[in-house]
Amino acid sequence: MSGFEFAVIKSSPSKEYVETTTTRPALTGDEVYIEITHSGVCGTDQHFRGVDMVLGHEGIGVIKAIGPDVKSLKVGDRAGWGWTTEVCGVCEQCVEGHYAYCPFRKEFGSQASDQGSFAHGAVWKEPLIYKLPDALPSDVAAPLMCAGITVYSPLAEFGLKSSDVVGVVGIGGLGHLAIQFANKMGCEVVALSQTDSKKEEAMKLGAHHFIATKGVAELSSPKKINHLLVTTSQMPDWAQYASILHPRVQIFPLTVTDFEANLSCNYMRFLLNGWKIIGNVGAPKIVFAQMLEFAALHGIRPVIEKFPLSKQGVIDAMQKLDDGKMRYRGVLYAEGV
Amino acid sequence: MSGFEFAVIKSSPSKEYVETTTTRPALTGDEVYIEITHSGVCGTDQHFRGVDMVLGHEGIGVIKAIGPDVKSLKVGDRAGWGWTTEVCGVCEQCVEGHYAYCPFRKEFGSQASDQGSFAHGAVWKEPLIYKLPDALPSDVAAPLMCAGITVYSPLAEFGLKSSDVVGVVGIGGLGHLAIQFANKMGCEVVALSQTDSKKEEAMKLGAHHFIATKGVAELSSPKKINHLLVTTSQMPDWAQYASILHPRVQIFPLTVTDFEANLSCNYMRFLLNGWKIIGNVGAPKIVFAQMLEFAALHGIRPVIEKFPLSKQGVIDAMQKLDDGKMRYRGVLYAEGV
Repeated sequence: MSGFEFAVIKSSPSKEYVETTTTRPALTGDEVYIEITHSGVCGTDQHFRGVDMVLGHEGIGVIKAIGPDVKSLKVGDRAGWGWTTEVCGVCEQCVEGHYAYCPFRKEFGSQASDQGSFAHGAVWKEPLIYKLPDALPSDVAAPLMCAGITVYSPLAEFGLKSSDVVGVVGIGGLGHLAIQFANKMGCEVVALSQTDSKKEEAMKLGAHHFIATKGVAELSSPKKINHLLVTTSQMPDWAQYASILHPRVQIFPLTVTDFEANLSCNYMRFLLNGWKIIGNVGAPKIVFAQMLEFAALHGIRPVIEKFPLSKQGVIDAMQKLDDGKMRYRGVLYAEGV
Repeated sequence: MSGFEFAVIKSSPSKEYVETTTTRPALTGDEVYIEITHSGVCGTDQHFRGVDMVLGHEGIGVIKAIGPDVKSLKVGDRAGWGWTTEVCGVCEQCVEGHYAYCPFRKEFGSQASDQGSFAHGAVWKEPLIYKLPDALPSDVAAPLMCAGITVYSPLAEFGLKSSDVVGVVGIGGLGHLAIQFANKMGCEVVALSQTDSKKEEAMKLGAHHFIATKGVAELSSPKKINHLLVTTSQMPDWAQYASILHPRVQIFPLTVTDFEANLSCNYMRFLLNGWKIIGNVGAPKIVFAQMLEFAALHGIRPVIEKFPLSKQGVIDAMQKLDDGKMRYRGVLYAEGV
C-alpha cells in the first residue's frame, strides 16, 4: 500500500470537534494500518478534550495493511489497541513486559496527535496491537482495551486467590467489568455504590453483595474485603471503609484524575492494618492477551451504548458521559459494521 | 514455682520513672517467666512515656519457669519477645501466621501494664516468645525484637530479589539494621540521610551508595531503587525522591507516629509510576525465627550503647534518644550479665 489518507475526528482548543483527514506514507518496519470499526469512549478522553488531537484509546478494527517487518499479524485480522501505543522494547521495563512504564513510551496524550480511535483508521506499531479472539465480538471488545485491562490487571497480577473477597467501588465503565472478571475468577464480590440505584444490575453482573454507601458513617459487609478496586475518581472516605477491609487488604486506586490531586489516608490506620495501596497502569502484553481470552471464554461483556463513529456521535457520547448517564460504556461504531 | 515477685521500672503520668515490684501467681497453662537480662530502647517507648505502664518491648532474658502446657521452651533457654505478646491463635489472621493483625491481640500499649522489658522479669505466653540461636549474643539480640523484625519483614516477605536495589531512608535504630540485612541478602544498598555525618558508618554497615538529601531539589542515584524502607518518622518529600525510584517501587513506611498524621503523596505520580505503598507490622512467627537465624548466621549486629537496667539507666537512655544522639540503639543490661 502506498501513501494513504483516512478521516479522523479531532478535538480542538475551543472544545469543538473537527472532522478532517490525515495522511500517512506507505507503511515501513513494523507499522500496521487498522481500519477502525469500533471505539470505546472513556472518562480519560474527557481530560484531553480541548487538546488539538484525535481522542479515543479503545480502538478496534480490521488490519488493512502491514509493514515489511510485521510478524504476528496479517491483513484481515481483527485487532485493537489501548492506552500505550509505542515503546522502546529494550529498556528494563520493556524486557520485563511492563510497557506502560517504559520511559520512552508513547501513549494517549503523548502520541502523534492525528492518531486515535475517534477516527476511521490508525497506524500503530505491531508490539502494542492485540489480535482479538474469534469468540469476542468487536463492539464489546472495544471497552476491554482500556477499562478492561485496567481492572483485569489488579485481579490477575497481584496474587488474588479465588477464595478472596473482591470489593468494587463504583459501578461504571470500569466497575461493571471488574465485577464480571472477579466473579468469573471465583471470588466473592462486594459491589459498592452511593445509592441502591445500580444494585439490581450489579447483582446481575455477578456481585454477591451490594453496599449503598451514602450517609453511612461506618460500613458493614457480610465479608471483609481482601482486594479493593476503586474505580471512582474520588477516593473513598477511608474512615468509612476501614470496618469492611480485611487486614493486609490490597487497595487499587485505578482512575486517572488531575495532576494536583493527592492520595491521602490516615497513616496509623494504614500501617497498623497492613494496608497495601497499589498504583498500577496497563499490563504486560501477555496479560493483556490473556484478558481478551478470559473475556472470550467466560462471556464477559461490557454493557454498551452505541453511537455512530461521526462528529455527532462523538458529541452525543461525550455529552452522555459528562452527564453521568452512560450505562456503562459508550462505543462508537463505523457505518456498515 | 509458686507465686513470685519481680522488680519493674514504671513510667507514670508525671513522666517520672518509678521503681517498684509486681507479683504474679504460679504459672499456669502456656505461661513463661523470663528473667530479663537485656532490653532495647525504641522510639515507640517515647510515645508511651507518661502512661502508667512498664515501657520496653525488646526483651531478652533467660527462662526461669514454665507453665504446665509449654511445649517448645524450657528452663534455661535464652529467649526474647517483641511488640506483640498475646494472640487468640484461632482467627483468620492467626492461622495464617499474621499475629500482629489478630483482632484479639495484646501488644505494647495494650498488654498488662505491669509487664514490659524495662524490668527484671516478665510473664508472657509461649506462642510469642522466641528462643535465641546460640550464636546470637543477648545484648545485640534485644534490638532485633522490634527494630530488627520491622526492617527484616519488608525485605523477606514482599518478593525482594537479590538483584534488587534497596533504599534505606534514615540511619538510626531501624535503618542501620536494614542496611545490614539488605546487604547480606545480596542487594545493592542505597543509604539516604539528611547530611553526610553518617556516611562513613553507613558504608561500613554495608551500604554501597550514600545520598545526602538536605537541600537537594531532585535526588540522583547511581541505581534506581526498587524497594524503599522509610525508617524516619517524617515521610520523605516524594517530589524530591521520585527521580531515584524505579517504576513499580515498593515503599515501606515503617515507623509509628501520631494517630492524626496522614500518609500523603501526589496521586498521579503514584499511579503512573506504579508505586506500591505498603503498611506492614510484625511478621509471622516463622519469619521472626528466620530473622534471628539470619542475623546469627551473617553476623548482623546492632550497634548499641549500653545503659544499666535501672531507673537511672532508663532516664539516661531515654534522654539520649530524645536528643537524637543514640548510635544506634540503646540497650539496658541487668547487673552481673
